[in-house]
Amino acid sequence: MTSEIEAVSQTEAPPARRGRRRRSGDKSGPDLFPQKPFKQPRHRFKPLEVVSEDELEAIHDASMRVLEEIGIDFLHEDAKAWLKAAGADIKPGEDRVRMDRAMVEELVAKAPSQFTVRARNRAHDLQIGGDAIAFSCVASAPNAVDKDRGRRAGNQQDYRNFLKLSQHFNIIHCMMGYPVEPVDIHASVRHLDCVADMLRLTDKVFHIYSLGRERNLDGLELTRIGYGLSPEEFVQTPSVLTVINTSSPLRLDTPMLTGLIEMAKAGQVSIVTPFTLAGAMAPVTIAGALTLQNAEALAGIAFAQLVRPGAPVVYGGFTSNVDMKSGAPAFGTPEYMKAAIAGGQLARRYNLPYRTSGVCAANTVDYQAALETTLSEWGAINGGGNLIKHAAGWLEGGLSAGFEKFITDIDLLQKIQEYLTPLDVSEDALALDAIRDVGPAGHFFGTEHTQARYKDAFYAPIVSDWRNYETWAEAGSPIAFDKANTLYKKALEAYEAPPIDPAIDEEITAFVERRKAEGGAPTDF
Amino acid sequence: MTSEIEAVSQTEAPPARRGRRRRSGDKSGPDLFPQKPFKQPRHRFKPLEVVSEDELEAIHDASMRVLEEIGIDFLHEDAKAWLKAAGADIKPGEDRVRMDRAMVEELVAKAPSQFTVRARNRAHDLQIGGDAIAFSCVASAPNAVDKDRGRRAGNQQDYRNFLKLSQHFNIIHCMMGYPVEPVDIHASVRHLDCVADMLRLTDKVFHIYSLGRERNLDGLELTRIGYGLSPEEFVQTPSVLTVINTSSPLRLDTPMLTGLIEMAKAGQVSIVTPFTLAGAMAPVTIAGALTLQNAEALAGIAFAQLVRPGAPVVYGGFTSNVDMKSGAPAFGTPEYMKAAIAGGQLARRYNLPYRTSGVCAANTVDYQAALETTLSEWGAINGGGNLIKHAAGWLEGGLSAGFEKFITDIDLLQKIQEYLTPLDVSEDALALDAIRDVGPAGHFFGTEHTQARYKDAFYAPIVSDWRNYETWAEAGSPIAFDKANTLYKKALEAYEAPPIDPAIDEEITAFVERRKAEGGAPTDF
Repeated sequence: MTSEIEAVSQTEAPPARRGRRRRSGDKSGPDLFPQKPFKQPRHRFKPLEVVSEDELEAIHDASMRVLEEIGIDFLHEDAKAWLKAAGADIKPGEDRVRMDRAMVEELVAKAPSQFTVRARNRAHDLQIGGDAIAFSCVASAPNAVDKDRGRRAGNQQDYRNFLKLSQHFNIIHCMMGYPVEPVDIHASVRHLDCVADMLRLTDKVFHIYSLGRERNLDGLELTRIGYGLSPEEFVQTPSVLTVINTSSPLRLDTPMLTGLIEMAKAGQVSIVTPFTLAGAMAPVTIAGALTLQNAEALAGIAFAQLVRPGAPVVYGGFTSNVDMKSGAPAFGTPEYMKAAIAGGQLARRYNLPYRTSGVCAANTVDYQAALETTLSEWGAINGGGNLIKHAAGWLEGGLSAGFEKFITDIDLLQKIQEYLTPLDVSEDALALDAIRDVGPAGHFFGTEHTQARYKDAFYAPIVSDWRNYETWAEAGSPIAFDKANTLYKKALEAYEAPPIDPAIDEEITAFVERRKAEGGAPTDF
Repeated sequence: MTSEIEAVSQTEAPPARRGRRRRSGDKSGPDLFPQKPFKQPRHRFKPLEVVSEDELEAIHDASMRVLEEIGIDFLHEDAKAWLKAAGADIKPGEDRVRMDRAMVEELVAKAPSQFTVRARNRAHDLQIGGDAIAFSCVASAPNAVDKDRGRRAGNQQDYRNFLKLSQHFNIIHCMMGYPVEPVDIHASVRHLDCVADMLRLTDKVFHIYSLGRERNLDGLELTRIGYGLSPEEFVQTPSVLTVINTSSPLRLDTPMLTGLIEMAKAGQVSIVTPFTLAGAMAPVTIAGALTLQNAEALAGIAFAQLVRPGAPVVYGGFTSNVDMKSGAPAFGTPEYMKAAIAGGQLARRYNLPYRTSGVCAANTVDYQAALETTLSEWGAINGGGNLIKHAAGWLEGGLSAGFEKFITDIDLLQKIQEYLTPLDVSEDALALDAIRDVGPAGHFFGTEHTQARYKDAFYAPIVSDWRNYETWAEAGSPIAFDKANTLYKKALEAYEAPPIDPAIDEEITAFVERRKAEGGAPTDF
């Protein structure tokens, strides 16, 4: 046995530490893990570069040629008229829009490189762009899943519970979509109930879907009401976001263009994200998929700037590969990681905030889920991601939102937050006096230097079980999934609804009731 | 539902891909996953910096003050005499050695910044240092574990099986210790059988333990015989490595110093690795633990250069934190990641190759194992690690070597290898013609561009199960652990013993038999 291993054995359960098993003083209660206050992590490391400057220019050039020579279909008459007036090449009766690179680059340059998005609770305002990071919870899953009840179609109760978890955990900065789709609410009024819930159950930044003009307008108005802003103030204050997914390849459909128009007009934020799966909706080569991603993202962003110069937008990258055996989308792959890093390079080339994701293809909270999600985050963080979507609760390539996965992801995100915290290299931290006091063959457990710091010295993990093998086996060999099952329910118990001005609350109710009485929004999307 | 999710659904099991489920032509056989040829990955990204240049100098300065003012105990009379002659301050009858920084820095500067280590199969020679990465398998675990037989004390059969896996998988570049300690072989002769097995069952670079002079000399001689080198050639050819663990805090014990002396004299490689667990054998602050790590590592390295200027050495960093509730060592923590990155900065400050690790504290191949191991590798790779120890099979903080964990780690390492592979940004990869051919609303599956590339377009994962939820659930919801259990046995079946010159084989046998007849090595270590 080497002394390396002997050293491990020596450190097991030293007598000095026995009996001090409970942390105290955290506001989550004695049985819940402690949290740091709400604060956006900052990128401390220079984002990595997976392609050289020349290679980046080659991708840029190829995507400009896509826009100039091939063009993109814009399925929206007003949008085409706007683009034509601005100099785009559009043949009569056709949807294909060709833009030269000067036009695209000039428009894209009007977008702000970073901006603040207001939250209902101003302490939860978010910086989008620069060195700021925002994590958002899983979005748009058709199913919810947990250990107790298995997998089921999304419903309002699960929807609300995910909102509560998102509010409870400080490392979740915003909700970029419904965590799970509540299909038990009729589609015509679902957006009304859902946005009202976002406003009442949380006080963090949120998202409205672009699924028809009425939904955009209702979501915008509810946000304005919820934030207590006048129409004049609202249009000057980024307060709500939407994701605009292109229909790759090379198409922007009517609801998405409508969303881009309404959000830009209202001074609100569009995250333009092509979902370019290499080998499916995009070329099988990652460089080709990035070329397509870049062309589509810039087309959407350029158009938003045409609607309203300076409209806040985010460059979204969601390039991954498919499983070439089944065609299923893959996440957390090496190709995904490289695409995430290249996406960041592209976004920074255009001085735009960068949206990426923390995702996996796993069907449950298992080894695969941890591996793929952690590798996704590795790519997202090394790539300089500003808004990291789906970062808590995502399973099955987005087909389900998992309650236990939400908790295990909180652990990962908190670890990343800690990883991005500066290392204390003060004289005190260098600990020369402690080293002198302990001397050769001593132990640091009992020293004053340790005693003064041990409680908060290290990040306390949520899911890691650090008991030794025998103790762990005696306890029934519990796994992270079990622990997370207990914890998500405790977090729901610990959830506290954020305060809301009663007058605003009433105004929300009145608006929702009026719009429901009017029949809500069309469901022919 | 957003179009993002609709897009996911669209890509499930497209008809065009059905029936092409089997890859062909890989030499591992139809049921085994394919491998890339043996090749060291290269760092493609600039290592990160977790401390500023000033902060790095502060750690350096503090560690120099440790060596100057506090000193380190050297438990070896010859070593002390050597150090005294070179100017160290040592009081008569004491073990404490104080060295001024000029002496330390002058000696450390004699070490090579990178070197080649010869393997029995020259195609498996390793570059240690620079931008090269070498992954080694788990080392020194007292227990072996797998699903079929559970956890048991290390034994020769398990030892040999881990060697076979290490030989079989091209992503394992070397063995830095016995994967598992075969306690069924008497300690007096264990090193003889084990090194003979390393030479016969593998043809990759390996390690000998420094547990007494006889073991070092036997290991060196067996390596020389196995490689067919003359004594003169051997001393000029780095061919075998040892890990020198300091006894933190501040002590180098007799077997370790003996190892440093014998390895340096023989021109062989010492990896000097303090095991500085913050809060236990090191200060509770990471900066303090790094100060201690740096002082101890440089003390060992300086001493090796005194024995033989230019002796090949590696700067080892193994700073992590303990669980402050139980005192158990923790791995893959945010503190571990930061320490791994800072360790790389320190090693590069002295132009030394850098050893770090891919480790976890998990008791089995579960979510925790994936999370902690992946975060360890995140720190190791972002930190510029050159020799990444324990990278396949490590569990329980090193207390067991897992067969299934070996396989899941192979998957992780292959993913990292792929992540470090340049992105192809050739004109062909940019795929402008494919994008033009497919056009809006098309699909890339059937295109010639895809058909020509799909087989090798993406890394094919080992443990990820990308079947959809229903198919996966019908199959009994298998987890990575189950799949890895099958695969490690298939890999053992697929294992082929590397050829060995019969004359050398006989010479190994003769040496082992002679030394056994002489009684082997003392067991009073």
